[in-house]
Amino acid sequence: MTDPYDAERPREPLGLAELQHRLAEFAAARNWQPYHTPKNLAAALSVEASELLEIFQWSTPEESARVMDDPDTAHRVRDEVADVLAYLLQFCEVLGVDPLTALAAKIDRNERRFPAGEPFGHSP
Amino acid sequence: MTDPYDAERPREPLGLAELQHRLAEFAAARNWQPYHTPKNLAAALSVEASELLEIFQWSTPEESARVMDDPDTAHRVRDEVADVLAYLLQFCEVLGVDPLTALAAKIDRNERRFPAGEPFGHSP
Amino acid sequence: MTDPYDAERPREPLGLAELQHRLAEFAAARNWQPYHTPKNLAAALSVEASELLEIFQWSTPEESARVMDDPDTAHRVRDEVADVLAYLLQFCEVLGVDPLTALAAKIDRNERRFPAGEPFGHSP
Amino acid sequence: MTDPYDAERPREPLGLAELQHRLAEFAAARNWQPYHTPKNLAAALSVEASELLEIFQWSTPEESARVMDDPDTAHRVRDEVADVLAYLLQFCEVLGVDPLTALAAKIDRNERRFPAGEPFGHSP
Repeated sequence: MTDPYDAERPREPLGLAELQHRLAEFAAARNWQPYHTPKNLAAALSVEASELLEIFQWSTPEESARVMDDPDTAHRVRDEVADVLAYLLQFCEVLGVDPLTALAAKIDRNERRFPAGEPFGHSP
Repeated sequence: MTDPYDAERPREPLGLAELQHRLAEFAAARNWQPYHTPKNLAAALSVEASELLEIFQWSTPEESARVMDDPDTAHRVRDEVADVLAYLLQFCEVLGVDPLTALAAKIDRNERRFPAGEPFGHSP
Repeated sequence: MTDPYDAERPREPLGLAELQHRLAEFAAARNWQPYHTPKNLAAALSVEASELLEIFQWSTPEESARVMDDPDTAHRVRDEVADVLAYLLQFCEVLGVDPLTALAAKIDRNERRFPAGEPFGHSP
Repeated sequence: MTDPYDAERPREPLGLAELQHRLAEFAAARNWQPYHTPKNLAAALSVEASELLEIFQWSTPEESARVMDDPDTAHRVRDEVADVLAYLLQFCEVLGVDPLTALAAKIDRNERRFPAGEPFGHSP
């Protein structure tokens, strides 16, 4: 059986915490931890986010909405999304930050900061 | 029962899919969807990743490892992590990309590409 | 006479090399050189380029072309352009790279790589 | 005589304005102007700045200072510097921004903002 997401893990085959753990084990098995300072991981995250942006840099808004129509570009998009998420999770791991708790707190703050129904401000 | 965020899972009250749903409702309630093209969201993601990097830009590797010791900086780190994750999830939402599946597939590919136990290459 | 910005140089008051020299003196007078590693300056350059992009992140292509119509935004654009150029020049200074020679060489290579008159490829 | 790049200045064959002009002609000859909105050029500038940062992302500060010792990496550094400068100049061209004037004004402001001799603040 080659599929790692098999019947042993029926209820949450792709949990965030689990992927974070796999990434930590992956880095440890290759002795990459010395490279994984918060600074380096933040730089790597920023580099990967730019690689995702690169796919869209010359697109019109309309073209950007059709980017998944081309299988090769769709693969590239998914690949860069994975890289961004991987470095974000590794960054959070080394600093002990819980990304889901951080995001929930931020949404709560934003709901107070940008009340629904008010005219558009500066921050979509 | 189809809702994955029910009482069966008391230990993960802040699931990724749930936060993604809250972000989509948040944007819809403010009529921000026209701004949320994939291109714009990729740009915003890249901008937020740079804001996270900015915290570390003049730090030594050692200083970067102690960044959570200062409560103000720790708050800033969590806030930027939240922004990065928020735009990543919104980007994935508008393009129908599942970030967890994308990351799991990428880890699988990387395990074949960088076998454990081999000398360090170019990609920690 | 020590002020380089006097009447001796009426025809090119703002040369690139001269600005690079002013930046180096500015950093030296504040003992900032230890922070100015190539890595840190590359990070700072990337952060400033993102701050320039931030101005445009929610704009349509048409809006982005009118960005200088608003005096405050025009000032912000000029300020971010200055920051990008400042870090690029300081990066080049610490590594001994001549940015004008590098660009001239690149244009020469691109003229061979993208012959004029051929259909549009991937790299405008 | 209006051409600033004439025989009077034999020692600066690679002036910034001249390179900016070559870039504009290069883009025009390939009909790339429709792609060269300020927004797209700001995105491309940010992407190239990240490619420069990528060279250093796993380096220690000390390693980053020796990056030009390896001829291949030195070439890569010069190539990315050229790309950053190229997009910065093209961005300035389409918006009518003079990057040297902008930088000179910024240095003037910073000399007032960070007086020499004062303790180190947050902005090297």
